[in-house]
This record gives sequence, structure tokens and C-alpha cells, in this order.
Amino acid sequence: MKKRYDIAIIGSGPAGLAAAINAKIRNKSIVIFGNKDLSNKLIKAPKVDNYLGLYNLKGAELKEYFQRHIDYMNIKINYEKVNTIYAMGEYFAIMVNEKNYEAKSIILATGMEYNKSIKGEEELLGKGVGYCATCDAPLYRDKIVTIIGYNKEAEEEANYVSELAKKLYYIPMYNEKYNLNLSIELLQDKPVEIQGENKVEKIILKNQEIATDGVFVLKDSVAPSQLIPGIEVENNHIKVNRNMETNLKGCFAAGDCTGKPYQYMKSVGEGQVAALSAVKYLDEIK
Amino acid sequence: MKKRYDIAIIGSGPAGLAAAINAKIRNKSIVIFGNKDLSNKLIKAPKVDNYLGLYNLKGAELKEYFQRHIDYMNIKINYEKVNTIYAMGEYFAIMVNEKNYEAKSIILATGMEYNKSIKGEEELLGKGVGYCATCDAPLYRDKIVTIIGYNKEAEEEANYVSELAKKLYYIPMYNEKYNLNLSIELLQDKPVEIQGENKVEKIILKNQEIATDGVFVLKDSVAPSQLIPGIEVENNHIKVNRNMETNLKGCFAAGDCTGKPYQYMKSVGEGQVAALSAVKYLDEIK
Ligand SMILES: Cc1cc2nc3c(=O)[nH]c(=O)nc-3n(C[C@H](O)[C@H](O)[C@H](O)COP(=O)(O)OP(=O)(O)OC[C@H]3O[C@@H](n4cnc5c(N)ncnc54)[C@H](O)[C@@H]3O)c2cc1C
Ligand SMILES: Cc1cc2nc3c(=O)[nH]c(=O)nc-3n(C[C@H](O)[C@H](O)[C@H](O)COP(=O)(O)OP(=O)(O)OC[C@H]3O[C@@H](n4cnc5c(N)ncnc54)[C@H](O)[C@@H]3O)c2cc1C
Repeated sequence: MKKRYDIAIIGSGPAGLAAAINAKIRNKSIVIFGNKDLSNKLIKAPKVDNYLGLYNLKGAELKEYFQRHIDYMNIKINYEKVNTIYAMGEYFAIMVNEKNYEAKSIILATGMEYNKSIKGEEELLGKGVGYCATCDAPLYRDKIVTIIGYNKEAEEEANYVSELAKKLYYIPMYNEKYNLNLSIELLQDKPVEIQGENKVEKIILKNQEIATDGVFVLKDSVAPSQLIPGIEVENNHIKVNRNMETNLKGCFAAGDCTGKPYQYMKSVGEGQVAALSAVKYLDEIK
Repeated sequence: MKKRYDIAIIGSGPAGLAAAINAKIRNKSIVIFGNKDLSNKLIKAPKVDNYLGLYNLKGAELKEYFQRHIDYMNIKINYEKVNTIYAMGEYFAIMVNEKNYEAKSIILATGMEYNKSIKGEEELLGKGVGYCATCDAPLYRDKIVTIIGYNKEAEEEANYVSELAKKLYYIPMYNEKYNLNLSIELLQDKPVEIQGENKVEKIILKNQEIATDGVFVLKDSVAPSQLIPGIEVENNHIKVNRNMETNLKGCFAAGDCTGKPYQYMKSVGEGQVAALSAVKYLDEIK
């Protein structure tokens, strides 16, 4: 039988980590999804002075404090991206590309994507616009695919899809060395609009137009309503009460994804409360 | 004219300190009330593992991290106890024994008193039972006074009152060296009930009964409804929304005093949100 975790934590930023250490202290089995840098925002902060106890640090240094803490507690992060979560009644099914996981409760700590969506993106979502290239790749065999990547991880997806697609364009939204298959055409240009009637036909960039059958927008996080169907959202944020409960039973949320202010201490505080609320929930359903 | 602070913070535990560093970063003038140990609970914690970034520490060690942070930000704590706060419309008046302060906004971060009240204490409050011995001392000139002290600071109040009272009994609720005037009678006994018809007449201890005209119960914190008349309380905690606003305009709250779980990260997160909400409020009333 498939292992069913007590708590699945989505996100390895301050909110997710705070939830993880508290859940672990309470002896719950956890799985936590995130990335090697813990949080892209964290490592980018130039100077942090408002995390009580640790001051005058670069975000990257604060990250090291967090990493040592979770190492000390023997918490291992799954470097996998969660595509969708389904509430199955008794448990949640967590879809991760080819794999899936099960957990009795969920803590959403996915942060907040600051990037605005591109014109046409929402209208054509599911009609050629997608957020998980590896999931939908089979649909684009021998077709033209454009990937707009907001982080290095998007390159892996691009490489994978390029093996099936007839042609793959990669538009990076960040500045770094790119590690792309030779067949991929790199376009260092700015996306302006995705166009098409009923399905994607082309993408308009600042300096050119490209015919394409599909566009994948690979951001750090996806909209909550897309990540977990049925979740209640208010002004773009997951709606929670003071116990960090969402409208879905057994599903909690913490950090930037629940609303402003976007800050570390607010995030860790909410992560802690979410974990303790999840622990209480688990005790009740036992 | 009296200095009017932007923000007065009541309490120097994790919640109050988190509020202070954020208010300071936002360039607000602040006054913060508390004690030399920052928080009596903090220094008592035997081992703290759930404050993200700092682990395997005694509470007293964590306190040192906090102290260094506020020193670095040049935040000085007023070692004074706030007796009452009055909402005056334009501002708040903060009463501290003989002195008073003014502030445009308030953050309550007073923690949570775990001690239950003594039988008779609430019924006889204001009828011989009080919480501020120095304030009410003149009423007890040449009378018999009993002080139940929950911390060392109570000894100073006892010494002061002993100079006016005919007789002073001191009942310590803690174990430490006592530094009391010679005229004070130390009773190492457990208070059971305060009795009297319409006014205090005696106090029943586990092993004896004592005739007394007044009883002062000197705890680390007083009930919120007593500290700031008109504040809305729910299940013994200050009622707040997700922005840490109380029912009183310009008055915010954070930490244990707003409800469970009683934890450090929850407290600092709320302190931060309270401070940023106060900053927003100050900008609006400008
Ligand atoms: C440049 C910069 C400077 C800043 N400076 C400060 C500062 O000085 N002080 C301060 O308090 N705040 C600062 N912030 C804000 C702070 O970084 C955020 O408030 C904080 O990181 C939020 O924490 P979080 O855990 O909610 O989300 P994040 O830190 O954004 O973490 C979210 C995590 O979830 C992961 N994730 C998302 N979706 C999925 C998925 N589907 N599957 C798997 N993983 C997923 C992400 O990869 C990421 O690891 C700054 C932000 C920036 C950008
Ligand atoms: C033994 C023990 C172990 C603990 N271990 C942990 C742990 O491992 N992890 C964890 O997360 N939590 C732990 N806690 C809980 C933690 O200590 C509290 O949640 C935390 O201290 C709450 O912070 P606070 O700022 O809200 O209040 P407090 O820390 O209680 O601070 C309140 C402050 O306000 C001051 N104050 C109150 N009234 C007034 C007034 N009228 N005028 C002026 N000042 C006033 C007090 O003197 C004090 O300085 C522990 C608690 C105890 C008792």
C-alpha cells in the first residue's frame, strides 16, 4: 500500500520550514516539497534586519541558518514541483509529474508569484497555454512549443519536451547561464501577448512574432485555485482564518500565499500555527 | 508640550520586540515598556528547538540573541509597568505609576498570565483588592496590607508601601532570595481565598488566616480589560482580526495575549503584522 503521510507541506520557504519543524517536533510523518535554495525570494534579499534574533544578514546567509536547523531536525526536502492536489475525502492526492503522493492533511506554503500574467495567458489557459510542460508534453509531439521560464528548473522541462516537439523556443525571464539542448532555440526577448482564436496560434514578443502550438509558462508557483481545485481565494490570496484553516477540511495555508504583509516573521508564525492546527486536525480524525 | 510617540508597545517579550524592530525600521518614534529579562517566560524555557534559524538553545540564550538585535537597532526598553491605558480619541494616555506617556497608537504585547485568580479576588476587586500597590498606597496609610507577589519586582512595591502601611505581609509566589524591608513580614504560605463583605477583611492561607484591609496581587500582567478599558475580549484573549486590529481604533495586539498557540514564532509574526498595521494607521490619520 502507498505510504500515507500525516502532513504534506507544499513549499520550502520560511512558512513551509516553520511548519515542518513544528510538525516534526509533534512526531508527525511529513513530506515537504520545495527547492534546493529553499526559497528564491530568501536568497535574493539583499539585507535582512527584521527577523528577530538574526540581523544584518544577506538573505542567502539567513537561508544557511534555516538549512542548518532543518538538517539538525533531519528534515529532507523533496526537490519536486507539485502540479495539482485533489481532496479525496479521506486524504489528499498530490500529483508530481509522473509520481503521486498521499497525505491526510496539507499545508500550502507556496509563496506569492509577483509576476503578472501575460496578456492572453488566462484566456487561453488549457487551450494551448499550460503550466506543467512535462505533464502535457505528449500533446505536443511533433508540434511547435514555446516555454517561458522564470527559473533554472524550467530548463530541465524544456530539455525534456524538446525531445518530443518538432521545435522548441525557450524564453528565459532571468539572467543566468542557460543549460539547454542544442536543438532548442533561445529567444532573449520579452513576451507581450499570447494570441489565438480558441487555441494558441502565436506569441507576440517585443521584437518579433512566433507561430506556436503551445505556450508553457513555468513560474515558481502556480495560482492556488489551480494547484488545489475548490480552494477559496480572496484578492488573489488563499482565504484563511486565525487558525490558518482554509475552506477545505484538512487543508491549511501559511506565508505570503495567505496575504500581505510579505515578510519572514509573519510567514514563520503562520507556518507554526498551520502545523499545530494540522496536528489538532489529525488527532480529531483519528 | 508632552512628547507624543507614534507607537507605544506594551511588553518586551518576542511579540513586543518584533513589533519594535519593525516600527523602528519604518522610522516611527516608539516607546516600549517591559522588563530587564525581556520576558519571564523566555528565560524560563528549558530548551527551544522551534524558532526557525536558532535551535538547541535555552530560552535564556535565545533571549541574548533578541537582546543583541534590539541593541543593534538602538531600541531601549522602559523598565516600567503600565497600569492603565485610556483611549482619548486623538491619542492614548498611558499611565505608569507616577508618570504618564502619550502615543498615537498602541500595540498590546503583554503575554498571558497563566496563574488563575485567587478565590474572592475578582469579587473584591476595587473593594480592597488591587493590582497596583504603588498607585493605591495612599489609601492604606496606617492600615494592614497584604501583597501577593508573582515576581521580584513586586518586592520594590512592597518596600514602598511598607513605609506608609501600619503592617505589611508579603506572600511570594516564587522561589528566590527576597530583598524586603525589615518591617515586612514574609509569609511563605499559599493563598486560598480573600474574604470580606463588601470590602476585604481577611485572607485565608493554607496554614493560617490573616486580618487585612487590602490585598495587592502583583502578577506579570494584568487582564487586558483592566489594562485598557473598552477592549473586546473573547475567551480570555484580546480579540483581533488577521491585521492584528482590536476593536479600538489605533490599538493593535500581538502574541500570547491574542490567543493560542502560545509560541515564539506565532508571537513574532503577529508582532510584525501589528507594527505594520500601526504604521498604516499612522499614515492614514496624518
Ligand atoms: C528581494 C527581496 C527582498 C526581501 N527582503 C525581505 C526582508 O528584508 N524582510 C522580510 O521580512 N521579508 C523580505 N522579503 C519577503 C520574503 O522573502 C517573503 O515574505 C518570504 O520569503 C515568504 O515566505 P513563504 O514561505 O511564504 O514563501 P517563499 O519564500 O516564496 O517560498 C515558497 C516556496 O514554495 C515553493 N513552491 C511554490 N509552489 C510550489 C509547488 N507547486 N510545488 C513545490 N514547491 C512549490 C517555492 O519554490 C518556494 O520554495 C523579501 C523579498 C524579496 C523578493
Ligand atoms: C517554561 C516555558 C517554556 C516554553 N517553551 C517554548 C518553546 O520551546 N517554544 C515556543 O515557541 N514557546 C515556548 N514557550 C511559550 C513562549 O514563552 C510564549 O509563547 C512567548 O513568550 C509569548 O511571547 P509574548 O511576547 O506574547 O509574551 P511574553 O513573552 O509573556 O512577554 C510579555 C511581556 O510583557 C510584559 N508586560 C505585561 N504586562 C505589562 C504591563 N502592564 N506593563 C509593562 N510590561 C508588561 C511582561 O513583563 C513581559 O515582558 C514556553 C513558555 C514557558 C513558560
